[in-house]
This record gives sequence, structure tokens and C-alpha cells, in this order.
Amino acid sequence: MTLSEIKESRTQKVREEIFSRYDSRTTIFSPEGRLYQVEYAMEAIGNAGSAIGILAKDGVVLIGEKKVTSKLLQTSTSTEKMYKIDDHVACAVAGIMSDANILINTARVQAQRYTFMYQEPMPVEQLVQSLCDTKQGYTQFGGLRPFGVSFLFAGWDKNHGFQLYMSDPSGNYSGWKAAAIIGMIHVASPSLCVRVYFYVVMN
Amino acid sequence: MTLSEIKESRTQKVREEIFSRYDSRTTIFSPEGRLYQVEYAMEAIGNAGSAIGILAKDGVVLIGEKKVTSKLLQTSTSTEKMYKIDDHVACAVAGIMSDANILINTARVQAQRYTFMYQEPMPVEQLVQSLCDTKQGYTQFGGLRPFGVSFLFAGWDKNHGFQLYMSDPSGNYSGWKAAAIIGMIHVASPSLCVRVYFYVVMN
Amino acid sequence: MTLSEIKESRTQKVREEIFSRYDSRTTIFSPEGRLYQVEYAMEAIGNAGSAIGILAKDGVVLIGEKKVTSKLLQTSTSTEKMYKIDDHVACAVAGIMSDANILINTARVQAQRYTFMYQEPMPVEQLVQSLCDTKQGYTQFGGLRPFGVSFLFAGWDKNHGFQLYMSDPSGNYSGWKAAAIIGMIHVASPSLCVRVYFYVVMN
Amino acid sequence: MTLSEIKESRTQKVREEIFSRYDSRTTIFSPEGRLYQVEYAMEAIGNAGSAIGILAKDGVVLIGEKKVTSKLLQTSTSTEKMYKIDDHVACAVAGIMSDANILINTARVQAQRYTFMYQEPMPVEQLVQSLCDTKQGYTQFGGLRPFGVSFLFAGWDKNHGFQLYMSDPSGNYSGWKAAAIIGMIHVASPSLCVRVYFYVVMN
Amino acid sequence: MTLSEIKESRTQKVREEIFSRYDSRTTIFSPEGRLYQVEYAMEAIGNAGSAIGILAKDGVVLIGEKKVTSKLLQTSTSTEKMYKIDDHVACAVAGIMSDANILINTARVQAQRYTFMYQEPMPVEQLVQSLCDTKQGYTQFGGLRPFGVSFLFAGWDKNHGFQLYMSDPSGNYSGWKAAAIIGMIHVASPSLCVRVYFYVVMN
Amino acid sequence: MTLSEIKESRTQKVREEIFSRYDSRTTIFSPEGRLYQVEYAMEAIGNAGSAIGILAKDGVVLIGEKKVTSKLLQTSTSTEKMYKIDDHVACAVAGIMSDANILINTARVQAQRYTFMYQEPMPVEQLVQSLCDTKQGYTQFGGLRPFGVSFLFAGWDKNHGFQLYMSDPSGNYSGWKAAAIIGMIHVASPSLCVRVYFYVVMN
Amino acid sequence: MTLSEIKESRTQKVREEIFSRYDSRTTIFSPEGRLYQVEYAMEAIGNAGSAIGILAKDGVVLIGEKKVTSKLLQTSTSTEKMYKIDDHVACAVAGIMSDANILINTARVQAQRYTFMYQEPMPVEQLVQSLCDTKQGYTQFGGLRPFGVSFLFAGWDKNHGFQLYMSDPSGNYSGWKAAAIIGMIHVASPSLCVRVYFYVVMN
Repeated sequence: MTLSEIKESRTQKVREEIFSRYDSRTTIFSPEGRLYQVEYAMEAIGNAGSAIGILAKDGVVLIGEKKVTSKLLQTSTSTEKMYKIDDHVACAVAGIMSDANILINTARVQAQRYTFMYQEPMPVEQLVQSLCDTKQGYTQFGGLRPFGVSFLFAGWDKNHGFQLYMSDPSGNYSGWKAAAIIGMIHVASPSLCVRVYFYVVMN
Repeated sequence: MTLSEIKESRTQKVREEIFSRYDSRTTIFSPEGRLYQVEYAMEAIGNAGSAIGILAKDGVVLIGEKKVTSKLLQTSTSTEKMYKIDDHVACAVAGIMSDANILINTARVQAQRYTFMYQEPMPVEQLVQSLCDTKQGYTQFGGLRPFGVSFLFAGWDKNHGFQLYMSDPSGNYSGWKAAAIIGMIHVASPSLCVRVYFYVVMN
Repeated sequence: MTLSEIKESRTQKVREEIFSRYDSRTTIFSPEGRLYQVEYAMEAIGNAGSAIGILAKDGVVLIGEKKVTSKLLQTSTSTEKMYKIDDHVACAVAGIMSDANILINTARVQAQRYTFMYQEPMPVEQLVQSLCDTKQGYTQFGGLRPFGVSFLFAGWDKNHGFQLYMSDPSGNYSGWKAAAIIGMIHVASPSLCVRVYFYVVMN
Repeated sequence: MTLSEIKESRTQKVREEIFSRYDSRTTIFSPEGRLYQVEYAMEAIGNAGSAIGILAKDGVVLIGEKKVTSKLLQTSTSTEKMYKIDDHVACAVAGIMSDANILINTARVQAQRYTFMYQEPMPVEQLVQSLCDTKQGYTQFGGLRPFGVSFLFAGWDKNHGFQLYMSDPSGNYSGWKAAAIIGMIHVASPSLCVRVYFYVVMN
Repeated sequence: MTLSEIKESRTQKVREEIFSRYDSRTTIFSPEGRLYQVEYAMEAIGNAGSAIGILAKDGVVLIGEKKVTSKLLQTSTSTEKMYKIDDHVACAVAGIMSDANILINTARVQAQRYTFMYQEPMPVEQLVQSLCDTKQGYTQFGGLRPFGVSFLFAGWDKNHGFQLYMSDPSGNYSGWKAAAIIGMIHVASPSLCVRVYFYVVMN
Repeated sequence: MTLSEIKESRTQKVREEIFSRYDSRTTIFSPEGRLYQVEYAMEAIGNAGSAIGILAKDGVVLIGEKKVTSKLLQTSTSTEKMYKIDDHVACAVAGIMSDANILINTARVQAQRYTFMYQEPMPVEQLVQSLCDTKQGYTQFGGLRPFGVSFLFAGWDKNHGFQLYMSDPSGNYSGWKAAAIIGMIHVASPSLCVRVYFYVVMN
Repeated sequence: MTLSEIKESRTQKVREEIFSRYDSRTTIFSPEGRLYQVEYAMEAIGNAGSAIGILAKDGVVLIGEKKVTSKLLQTSTSTEKMYKIDDHVACAVAGIMSDANILINTARVQAQRYTFMYQEPMPVEQLVQSLCDTKQGYTQFGGLRPFGVSFLFAGWDKNHGFQLYMSDPSGNYSGWKAAAIIGMIHVASPSLCVRVYFYVVMN
């Protein structure tokens, strides 16, 4: 080992220390203006199965890859990948399922509350934004971690017709004609079959 | 000792420091998007006895291995491994018993509250998810540690018939045809007998 | 490597340690009286698209560069760069969109509340200051991070006529005849078109 | 000193650092799934005197070793080792006495509250579990330390007859035919006499 | 590099570590009894423009240097340097403008509340002290940073006539015949003119 | 200096680091099950003057050594060492006087509240235990330090007659026939006289 | 430089680290039972001007040295060294003025409240102790720093006649015949005159 290697290893250490100084809390920016915790939460999604959404004139198609890790998993009881939020909105989920359950419950309650109050279905973007505002709060306040889930929302309302939105752990969302959350690539082994779900929102 | 060994030991130290930077709080993701505290909580379960559940057409069987550490332990008073939550749901527990007691109490109260409000037994999946939402909260908020328990839930309701669910400390759950929580392997010593419990939910 | 290089690398480390001691919390000043977290939040804005505002005698022009990262992005549903706050105020946003959504909602509610209470549109500067006071709080209290957004506000009221304000993450604001939030410079690649929005407030 | 010794001392340091990373808070698991603070609290009990309980058909015997550190200690006023919780439950305590006082007061109030509400004595296991749930909370929430006390509970109720329970700082408890909390071994010096208490619960 | 240089660099490091141990929180004294965070907040003021106040028999003159960083800044809308708090009190501000906005709003509300309650203008010193008590709180409680602003208050009341007070981030204040907050010295470049404001309180 | 000395100094450092890891918070146990902060609080008492109590058949004698650091101290106004809590209880104090004032006030209020509610003087042990429960709380919850005071309580009640209790910062207490809190040993210098107080509780 | 110097510098570092481990929070004792933050707060007083109090048969004299740092300071408006708390109590202050303002306001309100409730002036010692209890709280609870002020209280009440008390940041107080708070020694420069105030409480 030469001296330059020692130097390099030391510099390495300094860099790593500084690097990790900014990534252990959601409430601090790194010097480049990044929120590392939010980026790490996106990594958690990368470990999950993928999901694809396509917006057509007369409907939206959501495709979710479900990792059936064993033939003993009972797939009929819970789909685990596709959730109906209201009659006019559905979503595909990628990431930590227990985090997603909390957010989906919140979304269902908000959709029902809107229907109850205004006697009409909640506009899709309003529903999406309300969920994303909840997500944003978990990236700004201390003692919390961001939600480790990305969503693809497919819906229809009378103002904007069929719509497709994608949101990520930071609380950002945007409308797409086609979108995909890319998870891990699996070589399909014979003993693990990959299920594909189609969900068409046609009102 | 050569110089390369010194270098290695130093690199080792750096790696360990970074490794442990992300594993001491539940509220931070590691750069790979993992929650180490939740994984460590699963280790706590690995130290406990195993539990197995099998879903059949006409019932569910739960098998729990109870570590009888001494013949002086009075096994008749409390079973310590199997709990009846409601008339139609039972569970097998593996992990820290004092954590489990808290969650089982919560589950019993929720099941009774549902019965009181709707005059019918609580659907099994709804009961499981409600417990898992509680678990999830302990992985996202600061100043807490995750619950160190895994559950096997066996139940019956009129919509889905017999069901078997497994949940882990992260708050994830899924339906299974057969599931096992694998604890430590014990060579059965003569002085320590292994008790096996069968519990059939037949409504 | 000479010894002086070792010394330099060590001094470097000391400097970095001290440097980063003051930049990981919003609630501490550095010895030079700077708030590093606020400055890092401004970096987050530098990664976003630019925005320009020009104050004329008979109107205000807001120009926002929207990064259309893909042709599949549906630009008609949400503009993502320009928001109408009230009939007489609009704003262009640069920075983290999920942070901006929270602040814009707050501003809209405050404008409506003022109109409801005093039966006249809210004066522009009062609206801007109210938003900036919210921003300031996130730079002074613990367990929070500053909002990573800058705004250009264009508005008209009967006392001051057409007005143009710029605010930054620290909560500072000032009136301008022409102002720009400079984001990253993109070489316009053929596949990514840059959209320009004009918004004239004419009452 | 050889170089290998230097290496060893360094490795030692790394191990100790990692070791102590997980043992200073109750709210984190170590990588092996252990809660070190709870184990240290058990050490605190090891410094106290021992206690033994034996369950017979017609009664329970509790034996506590009281360290009379000086002949000037007035033993008649407070027994300091045996506490009556209700007419049908008593306990022997080992560990930090001021922690025990808090828990015993809690237990007495709960037993009285039960009697007042249901007009019958509280079942022994229910009383023990209620106390253990309190203990468990101090191992899961931040800013607290576990209670440094173990209990031997002796009681009688009409459902289960005579019972003997042992609980530890983690909030675990179990029923025993005979149980002992082992404290420090003292060579009985002539000037320090060891008192033995018998307590028979016969209802 | 000699060995003594190494030693010096090491000693330097130790000193810096100790130095910065006391300066990152407002709630700790350094061994010399200083509050570094308050002193750093005063540095923040040193980066701002200067302000001068002179107390005469028949009035008070406040002079503020406003940094017009660009000709495009619209100076008529907000003066940014001088604020009227009540009919009989005005102040000049140096430091972080968003912090000042919060405090000035507080002061205005308190002055109006006093007038409403006692039907006479608030005595100047009472108003100043009330503001300074607010400032003091931000130097004593955790999770906060001090306000980075100094004020020159000019006022008149019937008991003490014309008065001039200066307060700093620590919450100290004192009456002066002439006072100045010294900011950075600018060499007046031709393109940046320095505006001077006169404000005479004459009741 | 030999290499073994270097090794020793390094080992020393490691030991000190580990040692001090457990002693800076009241809410953590050390690996041996000790609470260092409580032991340090007892050190604070060792710096104060001594106090002695003797229990006789017909009374209790409390003797307190008061450090008269200067002849200018006015000893008639406040005794500073002996406090009457109620007509039937008195105490001698050793440790931090400002901590003791808080606890004595609490004790006086509780004694009066008991008399008011039950129309008879509060039993001595109940009063002592209530004070000790307060002390215990400061050793278990975060963000607090233990009370740095030890007490000798002398009292009389109709059940147990004359009693003498000693309590320490951990909240432990016990009844004694004779007890002493040993402070620093002073060589009685001619200019500093040592005052001795006798307090007989005879009811 | 010899090797022993290196060793010494290293030992020095260890000592400093341990030293500063206990002095950055008010809520921890050092191993010798000292509260460093309180001692540092006393240092803050040492930087201020001195104050002397003398108790005579027919009055109390308070002498305060006021640092007039400039002839432009207007000394008539606020004395800054002597405060009247009630008709029968006055105090001289040394330390951080903004801390003192808070405490003096508290004391004035308490004195008035006592007079209002009992229709007689508050006893001097009771007033002093109430203020000191407030001070004590800031040395025991987390997230706070002690008050950096010492007081000399001069007062008269019908029970104890003229009295002189001195209190320090820890909340301790004691009665004196003559007392002094020693600040920094100034060589009286011609341009800085030292003002002396006499305040006689004669009722």
C-alpha cells in the first residue's frame, strides 16, 4: 500500500462523513439542496414490484406486477397491488405495503367525506393533491420518516375526463399520458409466476 | 500484520460507522431504502419459538412451539402462545410477550367495539389490518421502537370463510394457505418438552 | 505525497467539520451570522426551472420555464408553474412543488378569508407578507426545515396598482420592477420543448 | 507490544463502539434483536437481595432476603421486601425500591378500583398483567428508562386458586410452581443478620 | 513540516472542538459565561446596512442606509428600513428582514391593545421592553434561534418626552442620546445609490 | 515513553468513553445496572454539611452542621438546615438548597392537604413516601436531573410513635434508629464556627 | 518535541472531552456532583458591574456600579441597575439585563398579587424564595439555560424588620449583614465615570 492510498482512504472517510451528515434526517437540506431521506425512500420503492399506467381516450389501464413469492400465498383474499379508492378512482401501489395501507385509508375517508358534503364525486386531482399534502408533511417535520410509497392514480371526473397521475414519496405529483414505477427486474423463475392486473376505469 | 491489513481494518471501521448510522432509529431510511430497526425487530422474533398455521377447507390449524424452560413453569394458567381474540378469530404469537400483550388487548377491544356497533362479528381482514396500522405507526414516528412480535391470525367470517394471515413487525400482512414463523431450532433435550397446540376455528 | 499534503488534508477535515456543524439545523447561526439551511434551501430552487416577472404600467407579465421531461407528461391538466391565488393575484413558483402546494393553499384560504371579512380583495403586499411570515417560522423553530420554494407574485390593488414581489425561502420579500428566479440552464434538446406561460393581471 | 496487539486494541474499540450504540436507549433494537437497556435493568436487580416463591396446594410461600446493612436500621416500621397489594394478593420485590414503590401504589389503586366497580376481588393474573403493561410501556417509548424491579406475586382467586407469578423489567410474566429472583450472594457476616419472611395467602 | 507543526495543528483541532461545543445552542453558556448564538446573531446584523439615531430636544432623527442592490428594486412600495409602529413610535431596523417583520407586527398589535385598553398611547419604554422580553425568550428556550435583528426605537410620550432606544438580539435595550447600528461599510459604487431616510417624531 | 504506555493511554480513552456513555442521562442504565446520574447527585450532597439524627424513646434529635462561611451571614433569618414541615414532622437537609426548597414546599402543601381532608395529621411514613415518589420521577423521565438533596425526617404519629427516616436522591428511604448524612470534613478554623441545632419532636 | 509531549497533548484532549461532556446541559451532574452550566452562568455575572449591599439597623443600602460605556448613554430614563419591586422591596442586579427584566416583572406581579389577596405587603423572604424557585426550575428541566443574573434584595417587613438577601443563578439565597456581587474590576478611565446609587428602604 502506498501513501497515496492512505490519503485516499482518509479523504474517503471525510467524504462519507459529510455525505451522511445530511441524509439521516428529513428536516435538513444537503448543501446541494437535496433531501436525502426522500431519495432513500424512493429506493425502498425500487425494491418493490413495478407498476404501469396508460391513459387512453376511453379509459385508463393500470398494470401491476405482483411478486408471488410462494405458491402458498393466498392471492384471492387481498390483491395487494391495486386498490379501489372510490367508484371513480383506483390506484396501483409500489413500495412498503403498511405505509400504503395508511394512505389509502386516508384517501377513502376523504373521498367519502367530499361526496357526503357536496353530493358529487371528488375531483380526481383534488383527491390526489390532498394525499400528496399529507406526504409532504412527513418530509418537513422532525421525528418522522417519509412514506415509502409511490402511487399511480387512475380516475375519471366530469371536468377533465380520464386522468392518470403519479406521485412519489416527496409529495410531488403530475399528470401523465403513460407512466411507470420501475421496481426490481426479476428473471421469471418457473416456480414464481408473475400476476398482471388490468383495471379499467370507465365510470 | 501488513499494511494492507491496517487499511482493511480502517475501511472496516468506516463501513461499520455508516452501517450503524441508519439502524438506530426507526424514522430514517438507509441509502438502500431499508428500515434497519424493523429488521432488527424481526431478529427478536427469531429468538422466540416457532409457530405454524395451515388453512384447510373446513378449518384453520395453528401450531405453536412453547419453550418450557423448566418443569416448574405452570403451563395451565396461561398458554402464552395462543390467544383467542374473539369467538371467530384466534392468533399465535412469536416474539416479545409483553409487546404482544399490548397488541392483543387492543385487538380484543376493537373486535368487541365492532360487534357492539354493527351487531355482527368483525371481518377478519379488517381486524388484522387495524392491528397492522397500529404496528406501522411505531415504525414511522420518532421516540418509539417497533413492536417485536409476529402474528399468525386464524379466523372465519361469512364473506371469505376460513382465513389465515401472517403479520410482521413492519405492519405488513398477507393471506396464506400455509405459513410459518421460524424461531430458533432447539435440539429437544429430555428435560425440556415441546408443547404443541391445535386450535381449530369452526364457528 | 509529502507531509504538507497530509497536514493539508487534516486541516481540510477540521474545516469541514466546523463548516458542517452549523449547517444541519435551521435554528443555529454560524459564527458569521449565516443560516446555512436557508441557503441550502435556495440551492434546491436552483435545481428547478427559472421564472421571470416584469412590471409594466398596465399589467404584470410572469414567464415560467417548465421542464417537460417527457412527451408523455400531460401538460393540460396542471400547469405546475403558474398558480392563480385570487382574482387579483397570481404567482410563479420555482422549487419543490410539494412545498409550494402547501403554501399556495394557505395563501388562497387567507385571501378568501380576507374577502369574506372585509368584502374587498386583500391588498397584495399584505397577502405576500402573510405568506412570508409562515416561511420565516420554518427558519426559526426546531424540528422543521425551511420551505424550498421561491415565489414571484404579480397582483393589483387599488392603493398601489400593479405590483411585482419576489420572496425566497428565508421569508424575505421585496417589490421589484423586474425580477427573475434563475434555475438551471438547460441546453434545449430537441426532444424536450420549453413551454413559456404569460399571465397578465389586468383586473 | 507487537503490531497485532495494536490491531486487536483497535478492533476492540470498534466492537465496543458498536456494542454501546444500541444499549443507551430503550427504543432501539440491537442487530440481534435485543433490548440492552432492559437487560441492564435486570442487572440492577442482580445487585439486590434474593426472593423465592413456592406454590403449594393450600397456599403460597414468599421468602425474601432483606439486607440489613446496619443494626441501626429500624426493621419494624417498613418491611421493604414484602408488600400486601390487596387482601388476596401479596408480592415480594427485588430491585430499586423507589421504582417498586411507584408500581405497588399503582397496583393497589387498580385492585381497589376493580373491587369498587365489580364488587369482587380482581383476578390475580389480570392484576399482574395490568402492572406488566405499565412496565412494557417504559421499554417502548423514548425519554424513559425501564423499571428496575422484578416481582413475585402470590395470590388466590376463585377461578384459578393459588397462583404464583414472576415478572421482570421487560414486562414479561409467567406462572410458576416455584420461582426465585437471584440477587447477590452474601457470605453472612456475623454483624449482618439475614431476615426471612414467610407470607401465606390463604384467603 | 516539523513535529511542532503537527502538534500545533492537533491543539488547534482540540480548541476548535471545544469552541464549537458551546456555540450551537442558545440554551448553554460557554465556560466564560457567554452565549455564542446571541453573538453570532449580532454578526447577522453586521452584514446588513447601518442605522443611526439622534435624540434632540424637539424630536428624534432616524437615519437608515438602504442597500439598493439593483435599480430594478421598487423602492416606493415598501421602505424596508423604517417602520411606523404607532403614531408616537417609529423604528429603524438592521438585520434579517423576515425576523423583523414578525417582531414589528407583534409590537403594532401590543401598542393598539394598550391604546384600546387604557385609552392612551403606550409609553415608549414599556413598548420597547415588551418587545425585548419576546427576544429574550428566544435566547433561553431550546429548539429556537435568537432573532437576528437590532432596532432603533424613536418615540415620544408625555412622561419622558422624546426618547431613543437601541435593542439587540439578546433582548437588552438602553436609552441613548445618539446611537448607531454599524453594518458593513460599502464603498459607494456609482450604480448603487445609498438612500437616507429622515423620520421625525414630533407628536 | 514505551509503546505499552501508548497502548495503556489508548485503552484508558476507550474505557473513559464507555464509562461516560451511561452517566450523562438519568434515563439509561449502565451495563452493571447502575444509574450514574443518581450517584453523581449523591456526590453533590457530599459537598454539603453533615446532618445526624438519633431516634430515642421520647423524641428524635436532629443535628445539622451549618457552614457559616462568613461572619456577615445573618443566621437568625433563615436556619437553612432545619425545616418544620408540619407540627409533627421536621427535617434536616443536606445538598443543593434550591432543590430542597422546592421539595419542602411540596411536602408542606401535601401535609396541609391531608389534614384538611382527613382532619388528622398525615402519617409520617406516608408523607416521606409521597416526597420520595416525586424524587423517583426525576430519575426515570428524560430531560430532567435528579434532586441533589438528602433528607433526615423526624416525626411522630399515633400509630408508630417517634420515627426517623432518611431519603436520598434516588427516592429510596428507610427507617433508622440513628442515621447520618456525611458531608465534607472541615477542620474547624477559628473564624468559622460550626452551629449545631437540636430539634425535638415531642408532640 | 518529545514523545512525552505527544502523550500529554493526547491526555489533555481526553480530559477536555470528559470535562465538556458534563457542562453543556443543565440537566446533568458531573461526576463530582457539580452543575457546570450554573457555574458558567455565574461567570456571565462576573462580566457585569459589581453591586454591594449593607444592612443597618435603620435601613439597607444598595450600591451598584453602572458601567457607562459612553457619554451618549441616557442615564435618566432607566437606571438599569436598581429596580423597585414593591414599596417595601428593592433590588440591585448584576448579570444579563434581559434575563433580569423577565424575573423582575415576575416578582412585581407576585408582590401585587399577594397584596391584593391578603391586603398587606408580601414578606420579603417569601418574595425572594418565590423568585428563587423560578430560577431553580431553569437548572433542573431540559431545553433551558439558567438565568444569568444575581440579585441583592433589600426590604423591610413587620416580622423581620430590615433584611438583605443575595441570590445567585442556581436559585440559592441567604440573608446577609453585608454582601457583594463582584464583577469585573475596571481601572476608572477619565472618560468613563462610575455611578453609585444609594437606595434606602425605610418604609
